[in-house]
Amino acid sequence: MTAYDDLMAFERQTQALGQVAGRLGWDQETVMPRGAGPQRAEETEALEHVLHERRTDPRVGDWLDDIDTTALDAIGQANLRQIRRRYIRTKRVPIKLAGEIARVTSSAQGIWADARANNDFTMFRPILETVVALKQAEAQALADGGDPYDALLDDYEPGATSAQLEAMFDALRPRLVSLRDRIMGAAHQPAPLVGTFSENAQMKLTREIAKAFGYDMAHGRIDKAVHPFSSGSGLDVRITTRTNAADPFGSIYSTVHEVGHACYEQNIDREHLLTPLGAGVSMGVHESQSRIFENQLGRSRAFTGWLFARMGETFGPLSTPDAEAFYGAVNRVTPGFIRTESDEVQYNLHVLLRFDLERDMIAGRLAVADLEEAWNTRFEKDFGVAVDQPSHGCLQDVHWSVGLFGYFPTYSLGNVYAGCLMKALRAEVPEVDDHLAAGEPGKVTRWLAENLQRHGGLYEPREVITRACGGEAPSEVPLLEYLEEKFGGIYRL
Amino acid sequence: MTAYDDLMAFERQTQALGQVAGRLGWDQETVMPRGAGPQRAEETEALEHVLHERRTDPRVGDWLDDIDTTALDAIGQANLRQIRRRYIRTKRVPIKLAGEIARVTSSAQGIWADARANNDFTMFRPILETVVALKQAEAQALADGGDPYDALLDDYEPGATSAQLEAMFDALRPRLVSLRDRIMGAAHQPAPLVGTFSENAQMKLTREIAKAFGYDMAHGRIDKAVHPFSSGSGLDVRITTRTNAADPFGSIYSTVHEVGHACYEQNIDREHLLTPLGAGVSMGVHESQSRIFENQLGRSRAFTGWLFARMGETFGPLSTPDAEAFYGAVNRVTPGFIRTESDEVQYNLHVLLRFDLERDMIAGRLAVADLEEAWNTRFEKDFGVAVDQPSHGCLQDVHWSVGLFGYFPTYSLGNVYAGCLMKALRAEVPEVDDHLAAGEPGKVTRWLAENLQRHGGLYEPREVITRACGGEAPSEVPLLEYLEEKFGGIYRL
Repeated sequence: MTAYDDLMAFERQTQALGQVAGRLGWDQETVMPRGAGPQRAEETEALEHVLHERRTDPRVGDWLDDIDTTALDAIGQANLRQIRRRYIRTKRVPIKLAGEIARVTSSAQGIWADARANNDFTMFRPILETVVALKQAEAQALADGGDPYDALLDDYEPGATSAQLEAMFDALRPRLVSLRDRIMGAAHQPAPLVGTFSENAQMKLTREIAKAFGYDMAHGRIDKAVHPFSSGSGLDVRITTRTNAADPFGSIYSTVHEVGHACYEQNIDREHLLTPLGAGVSMGVHESQSRIFENQLGRSRAFTGWLFARMGETFGPLSTPDAEAFYGAVNRVTPGFIRTESDEVQYNLHVLLRFDLERDMIAGRLAVADLEEAWNTRFEKDFGVAVDQPSHGCLQDVHWSVGLFGYFPTYSLGNVYAGCLMKALRAEVPEVDDHLAAGEPGKVTRWLAENLQRHGGLYEPREVITRACGGEAPSEVPLLEYLEEKFGGIYRL
Repeated sequence: MTAYDDLMAFERQTQALGQVAGRLGWDQETVMPRGAGPQRAEETEALEHVLHERRTDPRVGDWLDDIDTTALDAIGQANLRQIRRRYIRTKRVPIKLAGEIARVTSSAQGIWADARANNDFTMFRPILETVVALKQAEAQALADGGDPYDALLDDYEPGATSAQLEAMFDALRPRLVSLRDRIMGAAHQPAPLVGTFSENAQMKLTREIAKAFGYDMAHGRIDKAVHPFSSGSGLDVRITTRTNAADPFGSIYSTVHEVGHACYEQNIDREHLLTPLGAGVSMGVHESQSRIFENQLGRSRAFTGWLFARMGETFGPLSTPDAEAFYGAVNRVTPGFIRTESDEVQYNLHVLLRFDLERDMIAGRLAVADLEEAWNTRFEKDFGVAVDQPSHGCLQDVHWSVGLFGYFPTYSLGNVYAGCLMKALRAEVPEVDDHLAAGEPGKVTRWLAENLQRHGGLYEPREVITRACGGEAPSEVPLLEYLEEKFGGIYRL
């Protein structure tokens, strides 16, 4: 056994324990008895403690020092790069702080859910203050003198900086605002889909669509939860969804979104199973998969043509008279409060709001006590309507309750990547629309599996996107061109 | 912080991780995707490895040496006794062997389920041979020169020996055989309940009954699984059941049985949560709770009177014309293959068969290759009928696949304890039958919660039974007298 073998054997167990922690999170969101919270918080903290101890085990440092990197192949180099990055980062966070964050966020999530159900931000405020204070401390420790927010961002998008992202978002914003204004002022406005849609039938259709997009039910499952999510890597990748009798698109498109995440995890080459390369390489790349599944493919004219017919079979005649009207209903742009229900045009504006507010909170420029007001003020400015209730405002997302600061901007980065990938996909798979129109999106997503997903953590985020795009570096232009063409058509601009 | 405080803080995390391991087992049996097995095996092994490392951590030995036991109260003494026993036992098993057992039994369980579904013992044989060899090695290591089988037994029933149990079983057997012979030869034979019973309605009724017996759904849940079981301690105690459209008693009584286990775990004083005292003290005492719930209470004339009416409301008119006939149907004694479906009279004969065969396997007197034949020969001798298929024979129980050798005899010990407890309960709660007849078994089980369950691991197994029974030492006589009176009445002997 070489030092590399020893390190990888140790790492494999750490990865397995990380999967257990993920399973515990899934359990908490889907099946945990409602009175089990306090005990679960201790269970989660204990497991986090073990993971932290392993990630900062002095033997890892010794192995990293002892390994002759020149003797390693590309896979070995990539594994080592991932382990070293995590080791350095984890060592910077005191074990007591890491345990405290795990414990507090575990109970904060339940409190957030109650606060949202009661539409009362003051219920959530005290624990969010604690979470923010803990994340500020973590950011300081991680930054090691650098920018605290960037240190958090690096957890989700290695190598990215907020300055970079701001530049990209500055290029996105004016053209999105302009597009949105033209859409809002357009004479032609597509009608929404209206009606009541059996929630059981929605779940059944949702499962069918998930499988059609390539989700492997032998290595996954679909359950209901408050917030849709994907969880796990390799042979056990589970997704959740939620249903609403008045809005079947909510369950269908949140499922297709999570299927994008889940397929990425399921399609990674088996040789990377339970190694640092056995999971998606970054949140931005992850989001590129969920968004291209959901939007560029799932909300395309071709796929919605198939979906129009299939939903007619499932639910009876629809309020939209034909596939073209249905396509308009799927892609309606209207003022709305909820990020996850937002259209492709305004979605990134939701993200930018959160990106700015969370940077202010971490920097100490915005107190949690002032968050609700800051959110509401900013929202009215960006979206032209006042937030009517906290569950439509700053209580709508789970992220901050579980300590995910620095995560939101990766959503918009993912959209940009999805734009790049779709351009490449259309060039390389000319029959895209034929497959989608036939209800066979799996024949399209196969290209993503083979050109991007299978690599897992083998290449760095920008590199794996660039490779899949035939060497073209990521840019926001393809996304903007796609949106302008698509919505120009729908709204007859 | 004293050495005791340090030890208990460390132990609390170990207990929490043990709960996580239990949750992982529950997940595997209920919701895990079917293709996740190989990854799950590694996850389970990794967690088992962590638990083993913690249980043998040299600091535990140092703390145990350093603690001034005279300064501890009764709870402290009991905690220390439990930790010391486990420490000594765990140290004896090499970590590699413990990990191997976890890994092999994790996949053996899936293989067993497939073999049972295919009715083919040869599918199960190779992995069972591996399991037995590993358990023999573990028994040798644990016994430290003593009897290997007793060393395994001690895991489930601290302080018990197979010689002790044999003596007890020798006193049980002749009177049970005699009772069974008289029953089989009786002129009056109760008719079975026949019909088809909606499995959804069974699940609904089963939930209602579980709650009536005292099961707290805020700290538990009921799911379907191949094998009914109870899992977890404290604030998260889950049970599983299975349904059969032709036999509603299967789901009702397996649920009441598991509810007995689960209530024991749920009712332990909260001050013991996540300490060594926060779980049932032994399998025998555990089984006394499941069996008294299931049989002495659940199959009583009084409760079945209520159940007869309730099942009539649920399923329409029953094939049994009145409550008396229904009581007979619930308690029918007929030749049968399956332990878990067996009546109270023959149940212990099923257990004795397994007790003898597993002692022979661990001692090396019986090869796994000869198990099916040995089972079938012994079964025909004890029960008078030939096993018709392996799923009715040596493939019926999950236990051996997961390495549970030494567990079976605790079932009969539990029956003996249940007999003692029922005698005490009748003396102290004279209105037992009124509560049961009113469909309020929770008012009866409360006595068990207060006099036994709440103590968790505070007292040793025999001691907690003796205390609950007002100082009377455990004996098989109350069980025998109860059975002879009950079945003498039903069969008009």
